[in-house]
Amino acid sequence: MEEKIVAGFEQVLPEKIEERSFAIIREELAQMGIYLDPREAPVIERVIHATADFDHAESLVFSADAPSIGIQALRHRATIVTDTNMAKAGINKKKLGSLGGQVLCFMADEDVAEAARAQGSTRAAASMEKAARLSSALPGPMIIAIGNAPTALIRLYELIQAGAFMPALVIGVPVGFVNVVQSKERMLSRTDTPYIIDRGRKGGSNVAAAIVNALLYQA
Amino acid sequence: MEEKIVAGFEQVLPEKIEERSFAIIREELAQMGIYLDPREAPVIERVIHATADFDHAESLVFSADAPSIGIQALRHRATIVTDTNMAKAGINKKKLGSLGGQVLCFMADEDVAEAARAQGSTRAAASMEKAARLSSALPGPMIIAIGNAPTALIRLYELIQAGAFMPALVIGVPVGFVNVVQSKERMLSRTDTPYIIDRGRKGGSNVAAAIVNALLYQA
Repeated sequence: MEEKIVAGFEQVLPEKIEERSFAIIREELAQMGIYLDPREAPVIERVIHATADFDHAESLVFSADAPSIGIQALRHRATIVTDTNMAKAGINKKKLGSLGGQVLCFMADEDVAEAARAQGSTRAAASMEKAARLSSALPGPMIIAIGNAPTALIRLYELIQAGAFMPALVIGVPVGFVNVVQSKERMLSRTDTPYIIDRGRKGGSNVAAAIVNALLYQA
Repeated sequence: MEEKIVAGFEQVLPEKIEERSFAIIREELAQMGIYLDPREAPVIERVIHATADFDHAESLVFSADAPSIGIQALRHRATIVTDTNMAKAGINKKKLGSLGGQVLCFMADEDVAEAARAQGSTRAAASMEKAARLSSALPGPMIIAIGNAPTALIRLYELIQAGAFMPALVIGVPVGFVNVVQSKERMLSRTDTPYIIDRGRKGGSNVAAAIVNALLYQA
């Protein structure tokens, strides 16, 4: 179909909208003089697609081979644990299911709420302890995708530090103002943990879901 | 509890994190010389809280009394229709339910997929037609919250223009690169429709949910 401008609108077939969006993103990145590592580009471009925010081209940082590690995990029946039901809702569960994977969120679980109350911590932190316990019983790898709570990322760091947990990949993209920057910097200090981190205050459930989906579409 | 800095982390009780976040947001807005209309501030601050992106302080635009119109609708058993399951997941359904309201998303409905195929349009556009049909059968008001698809916002405009639909409030915050800006500008041209619009490319399911929740917490 011919593309044309009608009354200020760009005419694009429904099934071509995403393709056209990514073409615009790549064009504007090039205009900004930003050239992405081809292994990281699918993740970064999908996050920009989800947010219309090019800041993520600078703020997303990857440990060595993190995308391919994530893709490999997703090919081997990965369990994704996330700290928000929004991220869970945004992950392509049809694609994930076709690979034998699943996504879990423990934030509404009564045992998690109880543990948080008992410890004076957050449900997000307690949900990471539940993920660590579950991980040892799972046959496949686990990916942790934190889109909201820095307290989850901090507890995850502590569990890894204590040798109690080693997820295949940490997607650390909490958003906000209290300890968000610090939680990410702390996780970035690990040299033994594959991670994708959105440095700074920005992130969110939409960013977490976009990163998982970018990996899924390559798996 | 005394607040202190330990190893770079700010010590804040779990139940105080949100309060502290909003205090930081207000402080930084003031430092930027941005003073919000008190009727709009709860919405704008909650969107910044969800995104860590102060751009929304400038991009969010409100028709006259839009927040109070939304709050009134939520007090009268509103039905919220959204174009993404992520926004649905992010809306506080406990609070909404306590007010007798509900939130619906038609994106996965087979009749919507069929209508989109038949028309060569998107499921998001077809879901607005389903909302319009449903609206006339509902006793309460309807709020439309579009966090993803500009095609939904464009179809919504056409339905209103044709006199086929008049929602109590339009939350128009699709995100992206193809016709997103144009769809918002078109809706902004209406003088008869209460709206909250995130002008420009930015928006998203998280922004849509934050706006709904900001209204809910005042209802």
